[in-house]
Amino acid sequence: MNFFAALKETVRRNDSLVCVGLDPDLAKLPECVKKSTTPLFDFNKAIIDATKDYVCCYKPQAAYYAGQDRDDELKKTIAYIHENAPGIPVILDVKRGDIGSTASMYAKEVFERYEADAVTVNPYMGYDTLKPFLDRADKGVFILCRTSNPNSGDLQNLVADGKPLFQHVAELVRDSWNANGNAGIVVGATYPEELKMLRELCPELPFLVPGVGAQGGDVEKVVNFGCTAAKDGIAVNSSRGIIHAGNGEDFAEKSGAAAKALRDLINSFRK
Amino acid sequence: MNFFAALKETVRRNDSLVCVGLDPDLAKLPECVKKSTTPLFDFNKAIIDATKDYVCCYKPQAAYYAGQDRDDELKKTIAYIHENAPGIPVILDVKRGDIGSTASMYAKEVFERYEADAVTVNPYMGYDTLKPFLDRADKGVFILCRTSNPNSGDLQNLVADGKPLFQHVAELVRDSWNANGNAGIVVGATYPEELKMLRELCPELPFLVPGVGAQGGDVEKVVNFGCTAAKDGIAVNSSRGIIHAGNGEDFAEKSGAAAKALRDLINSFRK
Repeated sequence: MNFFAALKETVRRNDSLVCVGLDPDLAKLPECVKKSTTPLFDFNKAIIDATKDYVCCYKPQAAYYAGQDRDDELKKTIAYIHENAPGIPVILDVKRGDIGSTASMYAKEVFERYEADAVTVNPYMGYDTLKPFLDRADKGVFILCRTSNPNSGDLQNLVADGKPLFQHVAELVRDSWNANGNAGIVVGATYPEELKMLRELCPELPFLVPGVGAQGGDVEKVVNFGCTAAKDGIAVNSSRGIIHAGNGEDFAEKSGAAAKALRDLINSFRK
Repeated sequence: MNFFAALKETVRRNDSLVCVGLDPDLAKLPECVKKSTTPLFDFNKAIIDATKDYVCCYKPQAAYYAGQDRDDELKKTIAYIHENAPGIPVILDVKRGDIGSTASMYAKEVFERYEADAVTVNPYMGYDTLKPFLDRADKGVFILCRTSNPNSGDLQNLVADGKPLFQHVAELVRDSWNANGNAGIVVGATYPEELKMLRELCPELPFLVPGVGAQGGDVEKVVNFGCTAAKDGIAVNSSRGIIHAGNGEDFAEKSGAAAKALRDLINSFRK
């Protein structure tokens, strides 16, 4: 089953548009897991067990593993999801973008080494740098469009031919780069007007929407502006808001409750 | 010594503007190193020994190590350069770009885990995503501007306010992002007219210039259009053209000769 079919299935089964970002910073983990030899994995495992009935997908951020020299725990985390939360797809958030020969190596990293089901990529270098990912029709490819961070407008809001740069990206994905039907775009929850405009431009395209929770995005607007006509088509990512919901022995239980609460809040606006 | 001071010193000492890209693809390595348990490292080690008198810096591409599950060999390669080619700085080519908290983790990966002296980053997400790198005044930060690949114009050539996107990036670096004096830009050798225009716009900014060799960039134009008034200010990267110059037992000797030949060719246009 390809990524977007798997995602559709978990959206239905768990009645959820929640994506949990698995971004474990060792310094912020509960004391009870810090002493493990594989603290990131142990932490993730508990979070996955507690949240798997409330989510449509998981999104580990590669930097947290690479930056802490714990790549093996990323690999174990993804394998654990495949085994213990079967059917729930994994987006590996890497935001790669490089010349073709290099991009092919990154595609190997994401899809073979780590066995992820989908990836995030950066469009700045153009189509040939995304092609090694897009050519994998079984995998999902989310292309950065309008990102959630404070200075995302530095380039993304520059207006060319009467349209902001991020709109050019959305139209390239919609009209050209999505030939295999396996592409989506990343649109931050923190810019709801742009989210609305992009949904009008791309009525069916899957959106990965980071920025609720710690980054402050408004869930009601995300649902009202971001969903397709069928009231789905978005994966709403929360990382810190869910994984750091608690910091004691009961951290996993708290994260499960936070994931369920976000799911229910989102669903309250989908009715 | 910070990165650009170290680079200036090796440019002078080795009379060279050559950057060697250490991008070892296991499938393409000489048979004599393939059987090693650390083939990428053994290959790099021989290349480094053979080229270190002819280069100003090295640039390993992280994807080749990550994609082949050989991160340890990247770490060993950089450590080997620091020990055995002292003073020659290392640019880790990762082209990262992500929200601040994540970018800080990537900066840890590049500068602490791998102990690189400089990094490549992607500007699509804006200033706050580059800041964790730029804040390291001792390190060099090369920001993608006009890249060497075939479809680099998809976004980079879009014209906003009468200027192509890549020019906006160059001006942001020149006027604002280079507050610590530790930034440069990446400009592909395959677009010489743009290289010329960017050098006129940014007379002193360091340029990392990939795209000669396998990608077909013209060395004479790179030197004439890319150099500063002092006939330096560029690091001309060649990867495949040098590391795959030979494929037999004498591969390292051939790569040394190729690095020297590229150095001398570049220098012939600097006189």
